[in-house]
Amino acid sequence: MANECDVLIIGAGPAGLMLGCWLARTGVKTRIIDRRATKITRGHADGVQCRTIEIFQSFAIADRLQKEGNELSEVVFYNPDKDGNLVATSRIPDTEPNTSRFRHVVLNQGRIEDFLIDCMNTGGLAVERSMSPLSLEISDSTTESHPVTVKVQHLIPLEKVSESDPSSGLYRSNILSDEEFDRSASKGGKIETIKAKYVVGCDGARSWTRKQLGFSLEGDSANIYWGVMDARPITNLPDLRVKVVLHSADSGSLLIVPRERNLVRFYIQMGKLQPGEKLDASAQSPEKIIESARKIIAPYTLECPQVEWWSVYEIGQRLCKNVSFKNRVFLAGDAFHTHSPKGGQGMNVSMADSYNLGWKLAACAKGISSPSVLDTYGEERVEVARQLIEFDHKVSRLFSGKPAVAESEGVSMEEFQALWVRMGKWSSGTATKYEPSLIMAESTAAKIGLAKNIIIGSHFESQMVVCYADAHAVQLADKLVADGRWRLIVFAGNMGSPNQLQRFNDLCSHLLNAPESPIKKYTPPAADLNSVIEVLTLTSSPRRALPYSAFPELARPFVGRYRYPTYDQIFSDEVSYLDGGGEAYSGYGVDPSGPGCVVVVRPDQHVADVLPFEDCVETLALFFDRFMIQCE
Amino acid sequence: MANECDVLIIGAGPAGLMLGCWLARTGVKTRIIDRRATKITRGHADGVQCRTIEIFQSFAIADRLQKEGNELSEVVFYNPDKDGNLVATSRIPDTEPNTSRFRHVVLNQGRIEDFLIDCMNTGGLAVERSMSPLSLEISDSTTESHPVTVKVQHLIPLEKVSESDPSSGLYRSNILSDEEFDRSASKGGKIETIKAKYVVGCDGARSWTRKQLGFSLEGDSANIYWGVMDARPITNLPDLRVKVVLHSADSGSLLIVPRERNLVRFYIQMGKLQPGEKLDASAQSPEKIIESARKIIAPYTLECPQVEWWSVYEIGQRLCKNVSFKNRVFLAGDAFHTHSPKGGQGMNVSMADSYNLGWKLAACAKGISSPSVLDTYGEERVEVARQLIEFDHKVSRLFSGKPAVAESEGVSMEEFQALWVRMGKWSSGTATKYEPSLIMAESTAAKIGLAKNIIIGSHFESQMVVCYADAHAVQLADKLVADGRWRLIVFAGNMGSPNQLQRFNDLCSHLLNAPESPIKKYTPPAADLNSVIEVLTLTSSPRRALPYSAFPELARPFVGRYRYPTYDQIFSDEVSYLDGGGEAYSGYGVDPSGPGCVVVVRPDQHVADVLPFEDCVETLALFFDRFMIQCE
Repeated sequence: MANECDVLIIGAGPAGLMLGCWLARTGVKTRIIDRRATKITRGHADGVQCRTIEIFQSFAIADRLQKEGNELSEVVFYNPDKDGNLVATSRIPDTEPNTSRFRHVVLNQGRIEDFLIDCMNTGGLAVERSMSPLSLEISDSTTESHPVTVKVQHLIPLEKVSESDPSSGLYRSNILSDEEFDRSASKGGKIETIKAKYVVGCDGARSWTRKQLGFSLEGDSANIYWGVMDARPITNLPDLRVKVVLHSADSGSLLIVPRERNLVRFYIQMGKLQPGEKLDASAQSPEKIIESARKIIAPYTLECPQVEWWSVYEIGQRLCKNVSFKNRVFLAGDAFHTHSPKGGQGMNVSMADSYNLGWKLAACAKGISSPSVLDTYGEERVEVARQLIEFDHKVSRLFSGKPAVAESEGVSMEEFQALWVRMGKWSSGTATKYEPSLIMAESTAAKIGLAKNIIIGSHFESQMVVCYADAHAVQLADKLVADGRWRLIVFAGNMGSPNQLQRFNDLCSHLLNAPESPIKKYTPPAADLNSVIEVLTLTSSPRRALPYSAFPELARPFVGRYRYPTYDQIFSDEVSYLDGGGEAYSGYGVDPSGPGCVVVVRPDQHVADVLPFEDCVETLALFFDRFMIQCE
Repeated sequence: MANECDVLIIGAGPAGLMLGCWLARTGVKTRIIDRRATKITRGHADGVQCRTIEIFQSFAIADRLQKEGNELSEVVFYNPDKDGNLVATSRIPDTEPNTSRFRHVVLNQGRIEDFLIDCMNTGGLAVERSMSPLSLEISDSTTESHPVTVKVQHLIPLEKVSESDPSSGLYRSNILSDEEFDRSASKGGKIETIKAKYVVGCDGARSWTRKQLGFSLEGDSANIYWGVMDARPITNLPDLRVKVVLHSADSGSLLIVPRERNLVRFYIQMGKLQPGEKLDASAQSPEKIIESARKIIAPYTLECPQVEWWSVYEIGQRLCKNVSFKNRVFLAGDAFHTHSPKGGQGMNVSMADSYNLGWKLAACAKGISSPSVLDTYGEERVEVARQLIEFDHKVSRLFSGKPAVAESEGVSMEEFQALWVRMGKWSSGTATKYEPSLIMAESTAAKIGLAKNIIIGSHFESQMVVCYADAHAVQLADKLVADGRWRLIVFAGNMGSPNQLQRFNDLCSHLLNAPESPIKKYTPPAADLNSVIEVLTLTSSPRRALPYSAFPELARPFVGRYRYPTYDQIFSDEVSYLDGGGEAYSGYGVDPSGPGCVVVVRPDQHVADVLPFEDCVETLALFFDRFMIQCE
């Protein structure tokens, strides 16, 4: 007898848990399994980029990350001077101004997973551990509601193998190696058959799911290996609590990333491998890593009384260009892209993969979107993975290269630093821009004219605005919570102008009443007016220009059992009492005295279109009719 | 057989729990008992003033308050116009700019108690419930280490009496009435004898402890009663999610305070009592309160589908001028001052009482300060309570008065609003200034010249500074954590000036080595250099002016088992990468090119003295020798 669920997630690392958050929050019947008996607690990934924190904010867990993590404020570059002595040559901010309302943070992966697990649990979903997939079959029948069958074995853990044991060996991102796994569990447990509408393999670089689909990672390695270590060091290097990018004249390179709880993450260049040579983990030790580090930072000293975790890894980049099979089985995260860890990218791109996939799967599982939206997952995310690998390839080469000192040959430190700065926006994750598709309109000059700084395809950036009802200064993007709803952000303009107020009222009336309006068409009759598509209104005039109670109902709908008024959907672009603001229209490039516009925002916060008030409802109708399914 | 503890706290309301936090954090052997079997969950106090949040920040729990509470941004005044119609006459910020780095928040008392309980639990202290004190005796023996004997009875709860039951009747601040209490518990449980060094009565307006000491509250009531209600209302009054202060022409006054979870706290003027008449709680109901509110806000409508809590209270102010007995038994909070709740002051002043007392009791219990510091508790806090009662008397009179409309007699709304604004800093709690005493130096013109905006007696205000080691923009006052340590904030001046650098190095050397230096004298030989008095350094020059490793050891001591360097004691006054700053010296009124100064800060953040570098060590020696006890 098979157990049915809408979505089965294989692997409970960051990518799998992020997907679990989406599905739990949107009420999709989901299971998430992992082969490991326990979750990791130390080591592994730690870099959290701006866009990832924005995503966490949409699940209301960014504050935990910010509280526990260490914000990175500065990067200092140490290079050899003409005599070969290490000197700090320049200092730059780690997060460039105006990148995001958040800044880069570092925190060990185990805690980040905890936040996602708690978020998922709130939605009623928990990880089922010690569950190993055995087989995957996809039915060709078009009538079957749950066409994917996965057999899984409930494992009996034999002993707890701690990955965070400092003697644990090679760096890997998400999952035990097959050998370690085989040592850790007996396969004698009961076998369960799960039938799912969709299966997502978030099972890391050695993805079992990928192997079942017959897909493979392609790419190669650079035959260079590095050590990585979380320690509490004592050093007379003048900088330790900022990010330090250090190239020695002859002894290799080193990256210092200050972490939470006074830890410091070190990446330390160790040595080369011969072509075909395999990295021998058993020959490595924390002492060897520290010894390499000492050579690199000499004449400065280094002692590490406490090492919390260490590993060694080989630099390489690999990509699988197929990420879905018949829109029924998908890959996310390391299962389709692997690379070296120094850029602090991997965990972020992996979570962004499933952030992209989650709302689409939820909409299809719930029958409110057609399956064709799932095509856009691969279209959008393989390109990001390709860019990631290109970035890593460049940075790794320059990082591991011997610096050019005086007239000698080698890597130009100026070139390296310039690349570092140039890639800042990309590596913050905020530069991701999706191409036109079923769910993404084309940009045109007319649209750019309406909102010069809102880029169709990019995520909707935040500006400080003032909430009409409570006078709070709020980040507008904080209102874009991850709950599966689409949003129309209406730049209403100046409510003090009778003409513009009339235009705005007309628009709201049309959106509320026109039979073709997607709000009318796709909101179930008994549901709240804002339950499928939410309208957020931003006026260019201050709060005093129009009393709250004078706004049309669409802008402040009455919701819930008691029909309470909403107080958090209308905002003004004015200077707040204590937090600045008043620069939203200029920040978005919208004329405060102009005709206004409507920005269509996807559930993952990416801007899908920018429209004038005129023909807005008709254009929206054409757009949503392409993929939305009317409830019966 | 008696059980011994250093401090016995009677009553686990806000005042008792705040005291518990101090004692738990400083490792003092403490017990905290409460008659009630369970804590309150709904209703009661809700206003949290700026200074209280600063205090919470010193215990690292401010973030919980800010996350769950509702920030109050605006106050709007509704008054009758010349025709008697209600109109919004003015809007002002609820927290005046530059009052604090925090803003007023409202949250129900039960959650605030939860935060304090969690903080206390982290230090190993838990509330013992269903414990009723029976007798209190104070030995006159000078040799007894634990001279206070309290007999307590372990109660057997008979039934759970919920105070938050909307039918529960009269408003009271912290504790069940005697009658309710008698109904709720049998007194048949076992009797325990507790011997304590100190006993603190935090047992509310009907304080048992106060009665044992023979002290009484003095004052009277105004024979006016008000209703209070937490509800989710539906109204067409244009403002509901900002604070609304509303005087109707003829139907009385009303205060609206928007709260967490879409609740709204209403204070509603109900009626008058004849002299000698007692308020009859049984005659009151939520319907009567809502009916009174409707008359006041007419012609606007009001519906309250959900009422979470309600009560009625009589306006009155009472004070007990004796707050300690032989420096062995103390009163804190409502036990020595009661008043009407509308100002949002009571819970704040109560917690500030025990925030003042806690570190002094801890220092005495641990034998590092002489008992004479305890004299300053009453000196400092009775004056604050007196001001509170004066404030409440004024505000209540104007609030309950009929407004003067056109030429009619009554309360001037202009006068009322002017008082409201004028009292803003006082009611935020940040204006509290203690007088010269054993632990508080006199101010002089020379001291004011050194730091024009640092007021001896007031708490040390915060400025944004940049942490040397990690380039983080931080609030300097965030470093003043509540751990019982005194602090020297050294305004080091310009480290780019060789002369000033030499002066600073000389000062540090003298503080470190001079036999009379309090750091030398009162820090136990085996303890960390910063364990009794911590030095925080603020330079006027930017971080680049001097490498971190060039600062003297006193400024960045090596601590703990592994002698790790500290990275969080040195700051610069410069513009940070992303958060502004660079205005600390001007904010504090210290000349950035001048000779610098040393600010002495008590464990409760109040500034005890401002000193020049010259004679600093000698003056500090005289000051600390007055009350510190050298360890043996």
